Amino acid sequence: MTAAGSSDAPIGGHQPRYWEDIEIGERVRSAEFEFSRASIFAFASQYDPQPMHLSDESAAKSFFGELIASGWQTACVTFRLMVDAKPLGSTPLVGLEIKELKFERPVRPGDRVHAEGEVLERRASKTRPERGIITMRVVTKNQSDQPVLSALWVAILPTHLAASPP
Amino acid sequence: MTAAGSSDAPIGGHQPRYWEDIEIGERVRSAEFEFSRASIFAFASQYDPQPMHLSDESAAKSFFGELIASGWQTACVTFRLMVDAKPLGSTPLVGLEIKELKFERPVRPGDRVHAEGEVLERRASKTRPERGIITMRVVTKNQSDQPVLSALWVAILPTHLAASPP
Repeated sequence: MTAAGSSDAPIGGHQPRYWEDIEIGERVRSAEFEFSRASIFAFASQYDPQPMHLSDESAAKSFFGELIASGWQTACVTFRLMVDAKPLGSTPLVGLEIKELKFERPVRPGDRVHAEGEVLERRASKTRPERGIITMRVVTKNQSDQPVLSALWVAILPTHLAASPP
Repeated sequence: MTAAGSSDAPIGGHQPRYWEDIEIGERVRSAEFEFSRASIFAFASQYDPQPMHLSDESAAKSFFGELIASGWQTACVTFRLMVDAKPLGSTPLVGLEIKELKFERPVRPGDRVHAEGEVLERRASKTRPERGIITMRVVTKNQSDQPVLSALWVAILPTHLAASPP
C-alpha cells in the first residue's frame, strides 16, 4: 500500500512513548490513501467476495447498486494509515479491543481517505503495573471530509516501569 | 485464500433468506483456515507492518516475543469464512456495525481457525420497512477450541417486503 500526501502527526516520532506520556485530547492525522478499482477487487477476492465488491456488473445488481469497497478493507487501510502516523512514536500499536466499529458511508473507487485519531481515556492496568491502557476515537474520512468509518480503539502500551524495571 | 475442510452450516444454502426467516439462536460453523508464515507476512506488509508480524527476528524482540498474526488479519479471515458459510443463504452479509471486537489470544503460524456464529437479536428498522437488522455473536476459535477473536456483528438484510413490494 502506498499513501499519498504526508502525515502531519503532531505526536509521532521515532522514540518510544510510554503510557504516562500520553495525554487525553492528543490528536493525530494520518496521510491519505486512494482506493483504486484494482485494490477494491484484490481485497474483496481474498476477504469479502460478495457482488457489491467484485465487479461493476455484479455491484450494479446488488443492494448498493454500485461498486463499493469492503468495509473491512477500509478498516485495514485505516489501521495502516495510523501505524504509519506513529501516534505512539516507535511504540507499536497493540489492540486489546475495538468498540463500535461503524460503517458510516460507502467508499467508492477514487475516494481518498485519511484517519483522524484522538485520545479519549487513559487507565492503568489493574493487574500489571508495567502496562497501561488508552482509548482512542479513530474516524476515517473521505475527500469531502465525511466520515466513512468510525471506531473506538482500546490499546495497550508499556509504562515507564517497563522501560526501567526497579 | 483457501479454506481447509468444509462448512457444516445448518442454515446456509443458495436461496436468499429474508429478515423474517432468521431465528434467534440459529447457529453456523464455518470451514477452517490455516495461518501460514507467508500469509502472516503478506497481510502484515500491507496493513500492519509492525515488528511482531513481519519477521521471526523482529518478533522475538517485540512485546509478544514471537511471530503472531495481525489481529486485523484474523478479523478479515473470519469474515471470509463466514461469507463462505452463507448463514443468510445467497443474501449478502452487509455490516452496519461491529461491536466489541476483542483480540482474545494471539494467532501463531500453523494455527487453524474456524468461526462460530449465533443469532442473538432481530429487530425491525425504525424507518425502512423493507429492511431489518440482526445481531450475531461471532467467535473465532483455534484448533484447541480456544477463542482467538470475538465480536458482535450488527447486519442489515432485506425483509419480505423488499422481495415482493406491494
